[in-house]
Amino acid sequence: MSSVTHLVQMQGMETFMEKFFYPESIAIVGVSKSDDNLGRNIIENLDNFGYQGKIYAIGPKRGKVNGHTIYPSVLDLPDVPELAVVLTPARFVPEILKQCGEKGTRYAIIETAGFREMGNAGEKIEKELLAITRRFEIRFIGPNCVGIINTLNGFYVPFIALPSEYNRGYTSVVAQSGGIGFSISERLNHPGLGLSKFVSMGNKLNVDEVDYLRYLIRDPDTKVVYFYLEDFKRGRDFANIALKGNKPIILHKSNTAALSHTIASSHTAALAGDDSIVDAACEHANVVRVHSLEDAIRAIKGFSIPYLHGTNLAVLSRSGGHAVVAADACARYGFSLPELDSSILNEVKKHFRAGVIKLGNPLDLGDIYNLNVYSRIVEKTLQQTDIHGVLYIHVSQMMVEREHSIEVMKKLADLSAKYKKPIAVVLEVPELLRRTLDEKMTYPYFSEPGEAIEALALQYRYARCQEKKLPVAMEVIPSLNENVNAWFSTFEKNNRQPLLHESLTLLDRVGIRTAPWAWVTNLSEAEESAEKIGYPVSLKVVAPFLSHKSDQGGVVLNVENDEALRREWEKINLRFKDIRGVVIQKMIPASREMIIGAKRDPAFGPVVVVGTGGIMVEVIQDVTMRLAPVDEHEAIKMIDGLKCGRILGPFRGMKSANKDEIAQCVVKVSHLIHAFPRVQELDINPIMISDDGDGIVAVDARVVLKPRS
Amino acid sequence: MSSVTHLVQMQGMETFMEKFFYPESIAIVGVSKSDDNLGRNIIENLDNFGYQGKIYAIGPKRGKVNGHTIYPSVLDLPDVPELAVVLTPARFVPEILKQCGEKGTRYAIIETAGFREMGNAGEKIEKELLAITRRFEIRFIGPNCVGIINTLNGFYVPFIALPSEYNRGYTSVVAQSGGIGFSISERLNHPGLGLSKFVSMGNKLNVDEVDYLRYLIRDPDTKVVYFYLEDFKRGRDFANIALKGNKPIILHKSNTAALSHTIASSHTAALAGDDSIVDAACEHANVVRVHSLEDAIRAIKGFSIPYLHGTNLAVLSRSGGHAVVAADACARYGFSLPELDSSILNEVKKHFRAGVIKLGNPLDLGDIYNLNVYSRIVEKTLQQTDIHGVLYIHVSQMMVEREHSIEVMKKLADLSAKYKKPIAVVLEVPELLRRTLDEKMTYPYFSEPGEAIEALALQYRYARCQEKKLPVAMEVIPSLNENVNAWFSTFEKNNRQPLLHESLTLLDRVGIRTAPWAWVTNLSEAEESAEKIGYPVSLKVVAPFLSHKSDQGGVVLNVENDEALRREWEKINLRFKDIRGVVIQKMIPASREMIIGAKRDPAFGPVVVVGTGGIMVEVIQDVTMRLAPVDEHEAIKMIDGLKCGRILGPFRGMKSANKDEIAQCVVKVSHLIHAFPRVQELDINPIMISDDGDGIVAVDARVVLKPRS
Repeated sequence: MSSVTHLVQMQGMETFMEKFFYPESIAIVGVSKSDDNLGRNIIENLDNFGYQGKIYAIGPKRGKVNGHTIYPSVLDLPDVPELAVVLTPARFVPEILKQCGEKGTRYAIIETAGFREMGNAGEKIEKELLAITRRFEIRFIGPNCVGIINTLNGFYVPFIALPSEYNRGYTSVVAQSGGIGFSISERLNHPGLGLSKFVSMGNKLNVDEVDYLRYLIRDPDTKVVYFYLEDFKRGRDFANIALKGNKPIILHKSNTAALSHTIASSHTAALAGDDSIVDAACEHANVVRVHSLEDAIRAIKGFSIPYLHGTNLAVLSRSGGHAVVAADACARYGFSLPELDSSILNEVKKHFRAGVIKLGNPLDLGDIYNLNVYSRIVEKTLQQTDIHGVLYIHVSQMMVEREHSIEVMKKLADLSAKYKKPIAVVLEVPELLRRTLDEKMTYPYFSEPGEAIEALALQYRYARCQEKKLPVAMEVIPSLNENVNAWFSTFEKNNRQPLLHESLTLLDRVGIRTAPWAWVTNLSEAEESAEKIGYPVSLKVVAPFLSHKSDQGGVVLNVENDEALRREWEKINLRFKDIRGVVIQKMIPASREMIIGAKRDPAFGPVVVVGTGGIMVEVIQDVTMRLAPVDEHEAIKMIDGLKCGRILGPFRGMKSANKDEIAQCVVKVSHLIHAFPRVQELDINPIMISDDGDGIVAVDARVVLKPRS
Repeated sequence: MSSVTHLVQMQGMETFMEKFFYPESIAIVGVSKSDDNLGRNIIENLDNFGYQGKIYAIGPKRGKVNGHTIYPSVLDLPDVPELAVVLTPARFVPEILKQCGEKGTRYAIIETAGFREMGNAGEKIEKELLAITRRFEIRFIGPNCVGIINTLNGFYVPFIALPSEYNRGYTSVVAQSGGIGFSISERLNHPGLGLSKFVSMGNKLNVDEVDYLRYLIRDPDTKVVYFYLEDFKRGRDFANIALKGNKPIILHKSNTAALSHTIASSHTAALAGDDSIVDAACEHANVVRVHSLEDAIRAIKGFSIPYLHGTNLAVLSRSGGHAVVAADACARYGFSLPELDSSILNEVKKHFRAGVIKLGNPLDLGDIYNLNVYSRIVEKTLQQTDIHGVLYIHVSQMMVEREHSIEVMKKLADLSAKYKKPIAVVLEVPELLRRTLDEKMTYPYFSEPGEAIEALALQYRYARCQEKKLPVAMEVIPSLNENVNAWFSTFEKNNRQPLLHESLTLLDRVGIRTAPWAWVTNLSEAEESAEKIGYPVSLKVVAPFLSHKSDQGGVVLNVENDEALRREWEKINLRFKDIRGVVIQKMIPASREMIIGAKRDPAFGPVVVVGTGGIMVEVIQDVTMRLAPVDEHEAIKMIDGLKCGRILGPFRGMKSANKDEIAQCVVKVSHLIHAFPRVQELDINPIMISDDGDGIVAVDARVVLKPRS
């Protein structure tokens, strides 16, 4: 396809990215005739894989490479190249970009390494580079990358001599590591899969993950987008765009451990963020997160066959053992195996050789040695209306069955398309047979039943979430009342952190119920308040130096009466100096606790958290997280996602918790942190859930504001 | 190797199994010249793969197959075949076995299907078959199986025409599904792996999993044993033998779901047992349980390289991205990446081409284009004493590096052997390059970093457990005192279930502390006992019809004083008839609870369970299980294996629980159920753990005895 017709198809999208994948002409800077010159590899790749645009070689030593004249500089070219690929030592890069700018080239791929990832010296060069590219408005990929590939026009600019073209297909790969990018691309050389576009992002100094995502989500030649990222530069925007998109996005976000951080920062200058926020963002935007190449390819296979519209499967297998393993996997992923129509079973029975296998679902076809029968049985199964998909396990040891096997596989591909139901194929054949089948097949297959079922579960879940996705929710900004604004403006003015009673006040103003409390500064106020609130009460000392109050004896629980109050008051006065006051609060006897919190992430912005409190959160860390703000629907999903959510149902004689009220509380907290950028953290811990299902009350709260800079 | 020299090597083991794998002569029953005759395939396999023993073909129609005369019956043979392989319709099988018996053949492989898995008719034939084989003392494999393979002598008797021999190697495969067996064997065609013996077990009517395990554990040609099982016939014996063995045993036990059950019972007449007991048995005997073919092969690869002796790894990679992913995996599996000696880093630096990569561990070798340097760096790394193993990630896109790659791989295999440290190799190359490498390599490789790290974690864990294994523990029978024996003999006599007070008595006699309690039958006894025990107390109504007491108001908690006692006593009398009496018991205020229990499994015998009690067990089912009896060491491991074990440490102001006392209690329960076969179930729920770390007391107990038959 010429770049012009392609541009017409892409109307309305940012065309700048288009220049990277469909340039009319290209200059490779850093080419020489030397055997180990990497620039040469780029030229050879372009020539080998059929790039039709103009190719200019640039290098200090004259000569020819693959028939292309080597020019000393971009300035010497007879023409303005649309795109420059730069692969010289880092120190020359700023000057080369300047020359590009002067010549009129506005797009570059900087494959050179040695920038910020190498410390101060590299960072200095990087600054120069940025100044120049800004001046000339040059958009660039990299630095420190392997290059890009577009299989559709043979545009291959990696500096590695690639042995062969990748299968053309509909998956685009964007990787913050060339090595991982190649590994995935290599695995796309599989029947029915294939590569559309490949990007090694490098340091993401100019073009970043958001630019790629925005482009690929609209690219008509991309049906599945795969990202390998070691850090997020603009996580929030990434999630927002993903949320609005309508293509499966698969994300392998690595660099989750402190150990990984060192090497990641070395090779692409990435910084490890909080990993659970990435999970939250994926949940929010229906991005499929994976943790390995295997996971990624499995997901891509799942997305390359029709989607399931329900959870009823038929398992057809030539091996009883594989059928049993498949049934185990079905149970694990929540699939059902309904009975097959008797007409199907009768068809099977007709062809049984020895009649030694019981008929059911899973259906063991082991006894049928006529492979042609299989596709007929599969078709009948697809016709059964309450069957949503088929797992077909093709086992063959025998080379004599080769031609038949190829035929069966072709028919399955057709049937799947005809009935718009997925047939997940497991191909269990000797390696030699597999290779010959690979050449003939155009439909993906899995290597064992569990893998196939996992892929079906994943695409089914994706499609369901996609239907329910409410892209609006995330951007809604609530109308917070004047009182809340006033509260914040106090702290805007005097640049200090809120104390406990001030945090509780905020909850009251937002409309989150708190356990009855009072702020007192002397004993008689305390006695009066305790009387009003009703015993038993707790006493919480408030002082700027007391961060974790309970650790330091600043909290007294279960004060039963006046006498105890006086005694405890005295003790507090003996123990602490510089007290601002005491929060006196009604004891809440409920036995179920939750926590609700929020914080602000550098890449993803505000997030909100809900968890089961008390012993649960301490022992098994039972929390779910989302990007803030969330709506009630999403908040309910968060609560339902808790491992110990069962305690909220009718439980041990207690009534069901008011889940809606908890959800509203989550929504409010999420809106608070979203609306007020100075909120760094907000914690309500615990929120007590009444045993009689009446409602919830916050007992403790902490708000941390960003210091004014 | 001739079967004679082999027998000498196997001195002291059951030689009967030997006859199946090294028969001097064999009769194939059910052969014809017809194209689709399956018996023919067996003969062709034997001829193709070099079996040197005598081969006799038997079938109703005369003629020759592959040069072998077809005899009408075993009785017509000129010689007594050591082993018969039978593949005729089921109804003929008993008669054929009878002929074998009369002829003097004592070993058979019955590949025919159509026995118990097909219902009544099949079951009838099965009974005949059993009677005949018993009479002639014939040992047999199957029925309903694919046959066996011994790669060492070319003994291939599956009825499927196999396209080629399997790689010879040291893994033996025993599978209750021919299909799964072949799938694993096929995957063993990998550098450094290979198949020793293959068995398709079928219905296990005579030879079962225990016979195979016993044989293979002593077989000098087997280093790793793989089992695929759909049910256990003799689970307990299997675990006992595994426990005493010194080879890795990998178990894929499927058929865990109700869905799977149907098909499994159809194709090998298996019954789904309680899956967590299988986990318990594996834990006990250090058997590696897997759930997929992929898992199994990963484990086999891990066991095919030297074992780790510590958790310090060096990660060397040509791709920074793969190194990051590897570091994530290291963190996930608890491996550390210590600093590499400066001498290593200097060696690396010498060879850097552009000097654009930071040095550390993981070490990104991306910049070195001289492959020869790699093995030198790996060797230096292995020499570093605090490095226990290396993850080496070999990434190559270029066919020109082929010869070098092969050389590097060979050197790595040598180095790993020389330094007795594992080098887990990840080979990330294009498929074409991989195939040519496969032919030359003799050392296994992994397909991505996470997989390699998982395999290292698995073999490390295996080796450590193997060191600590105490094969004696499981068989120890405790000396239970006379009082306990007397307790049991009461119920021996009168064939009824123990009531609550009787169950509590048993605990007292065994030496498990119970919360102070008394058995009362009238109010004055109750008042007297409550006074003695001290208020508050609970009242537990005991009556045979009250199974779950608390559900039916049969338990009154927190009775504070005499008056309340009288009031509650009256209520009980109004509510219940036919009460045997009431257990009056001291209320225990502790806030941490556990449960300890035991039950008897049909295949595995007695098992013991410990769990965190209260909300934990209800909401997240936090329990661990082992085959009973266990010793204190194992009991501690069970407690440490609990998800919520943290509550036993110093927790929320409570002191550490007395873990030893809990463990002793687990040991006692495990011994009880082991020593008294009539105990079907035993539950202590809850056991309270005192806040001050003082000790534990059982509050409730239930013993269920097997009814006398």
